[in-house]
Amino acid sequence: MFLYLVDLLGTSIFAISGVALAFRLRMDAVGVLVLASVTAIGGGTIRDLVLDVPVFWLSNNAYIWVVIITCILMIIFVKKPAKVPWYILPVSDAIGLAFFTIMGTEKSLQLGFTPTVAVIMGALTGCGGGVIRDVLAREIPLIFRKEIYATASIIGGSIYCLLSMYHVSRIIDVIVAIIAVLIIRLASIKWQLSLPTFGQSR
Amino acid sequence: MFLYLVDLLGTSIFAISGVALAFRLRMDAVGVLVLASVTAIGGGTIRDLVLDVPVFWLSNNAYIWVVIITCILMIIFVKKPAKVPWYILPVSDAIGLAFFTIMGTEKSLQLGFTPTVAVIMGALTGCGGGVIRDVLAREIPLIFRKEIYATASIIGGSIYCLLSMYHVSRIIDVIVAIIAVLIIRLASIKWQLSLPTFGQSR
Amino acid sequence: MFLYLVDLLGTSIFAISGVALAFRLRMDAVGVLVLASVTAIGGGTIRDLVLDVPVFWLSNNAYIWVVIITCILMIIFVKKPAKVPWYILPVSDAIGLAFFTIMGTEKSLQLGFTPTVAVIMGALTGCGGGVIRDVLAREIPLIFRKEIYATASIIGGSIYCLLSMYHVSRIIDVIVAIIAVLIIRLASIKWQLSLPTFGQSR
Repeated sequence: MFLYLVDLLGTSIFAISGVALAFRLRMDAVGVLVLASVTAIGGGTIRDLVLDVPVFWLSNNAYIWVVIITCILMIIFVKKPAKVPWYILPVSDAIGLAFFTIMGTEKSLQLGFTPTVAVIMGALTGCGGGVIRDVLAREIPLIFRKEIYATASIIGGSIYCLLSMYHVSRIIDVIVAIIAVLIIRLASIKWQLSLPTFGQSR
Repeated sequence: MFLYLVDLLGTSIFAISGVALAFRLRMDAVGVLVLASVTAIGGGTIRDLVLDVPVFWLSNNAYIWVVIITCILMIIFVKKPAKVPWYILPVSDAIGLAFFTIMGTEKSLQLGFTPTVAVIMGALTGCGGGVIRDVLAREIPLIFRKEIYATASIIGGSIYCLLSMYHVSRIIDVIVAIIAVLIIRLASIKWQLSLPTFGQSR
Repeated sequence: MFLYLVDLLGTSIFAISGVALAFRLRMDAVGVLVLASVTAIGGGTIRDLVLDVPVFWLSNNAYIWVVIITCILMIIFVKKPAKVPWYILPVSDAIGLAFFTIMGTEKSLQLGFTPTVAVIMGALTGCGGGVIRDVLAREIPLIFRKEIYATASIIGGSIYCLLSMYHVSRIIDVIVAIIAVLIIRLASIKWQLSLPTFGQSR
C-alpha cells in the first residue's frame, strides 16, 4: 500500500517535468499531455515489456488518471507557463528518477532477477521516461548532459540491492535508497558536479 | 474480413507518408523502405507489445508485403520524387492516423480492456508509427506541430468507444469514427486549426 | 557453443562503436556505458520483444558484463579518446551489424518463423541498436546516410535463409552470411558505394 502511494506520487511528480518542458516549448494541451505521459509512464512500460510482465497501467488506470489530473491542475494553476522557474524541470525529474529507479529495482528483485539485472532495470525505469521525453522534444537527453544523472540511478539501485540482502523492512530500504538518489542528483545539479569526460586532451 | 481489408488499406496509405518523407529527404530505396515500414507497422507493433498479444505482422506477412509493394509502386510511378506535392505527406498521414486509431481502439476493446485504455491504445497505434518516422528522420514530430493531431485521435477513439456501447453494427461504428478523425485532422490542416498553446504571455 | 561465442564477440565489438561515438561527443563514463549498452543490446532486445521470447540478457548476465568490461578496457587503454581514428566507429558498427543480423535471422528461423519475418528480424537486430545509439546521440542514423547499410543486412539475411534451406552445417552458413554482410558494408564504406537516391532531378 505504502509502495503503491509512493508510485502514484512519483508518477505525478515525473509528469510535472514533462509539463514543464512542454510549457517551455510552447506546446498545446495535448502536447503537454503527451510529454507528461511518456515521461511518467514510459520508463515503467519499457521495464515491464523487457521483464515480460503485464504493463502496469493496463490493469490499473489510476496511473493514467494521475497523469491526466496532474496536467489539468498544472494548466489551471500555472498562470504564466513561460515563467515556470527553470529548476522545476530538473528537480521534478530528479524526484521521478529517484522514485522510479528504486521501484524498478524493487520490482525486478521481487520477480527473482539477479541484482545485476535489477540495477539495470532500475536505471531503465528511472531514466527511460525522461530519455523518451527528451528525444520526442528534440532536446539533448538529460542523461547525456554534464551533471551526474544515470550514475545516481545506478548507485541508488545498488544501495537498494545491498539493503534488501539484509532483510530490513522493505519500506525503510525504499526510503533510504530514494533519498540517496535524490541527494546525489540534486547535489550534482546544485554544484554542477560531473564525472570527468573523455575526448578532451588529458 | 471488412476490417482486415481496411487494415491493409490503412497500412498501404500510411506507408505512403513514409515514402513521401523519404523522397523529400532524398533517401535511397532502402531508406524509403525503412521509413515506410516504421510508419505503417510501428504503431501497431507498440500496441501489440504493450497489450502482450502476438505482434500482428509476425503471423500474417501480408502487412509486410503491402508495405514493400507500396514502396515499389511509388518508386516506379512517381516520376519526380522531389516534386511530390507537399500535401501528400500530411494527407496520407491523416488517413493512416484515422484508420489505425480506430483499429487500435477496436482491438483493445475486443480484448476486454477499459475504454480509458482503449482510447490510449488507439492514440498509440495511430500516432506511434508517425512519431517513430519523424524521430528517425529528425523532423519535429507532426504530433507536436501547431495543428490538431493527437486530439483528433483521442476524440475519434472516444467516439468509437461510445458507439460500441450501443451495439450498433461494428462496421458502421468503425466507418463513422474513422471519418470523424479524418474530418477533424484534415480540417485542421486545411484551416490551420490549433489548440491554444501555453508559454506565450496570456 | 560456437554461436554463443560469436554472439558475445559481436556484443563486445558493437559496444566499441558506442564507446567511439561517446568519446567523440566528449561524454563521461556513464554516457560511454549507456551508448555502448544500447548499441550492443538494443537490437536484440527489440527482436526478443517482438518475437515474444524472453529478452536474451535477462537470464544470461554475460552479455551485460561483456559490455561493461569492454567499456572499462576502452576507457583504460585508449590514451587519447579525442583521437580515436574515425574509422573505428563505422568498422566496429559494420562487424556488429554483420554478426547481429545473422544471429537475429538464425534465431527467428529456429523459432519457426517464415524467411520473410526472419530477414526483417535480422535487419531489426542488426540495425536496431545502432539506430537507437544514433537517435540518443542526436546523430543522423548511419542507416540513412549515403553508404549501403540496411541493404547489406537484408542481403546477408536472405543469403542465410537460402543457405539454411540446403541443410549445410549451421556454423558454415553463419560464417558465410556474416562475411557477406561485412564485405558489402565495408566495401561501401571504403569506396563510398551507395544506392541511387530519389529526390534529385533524374
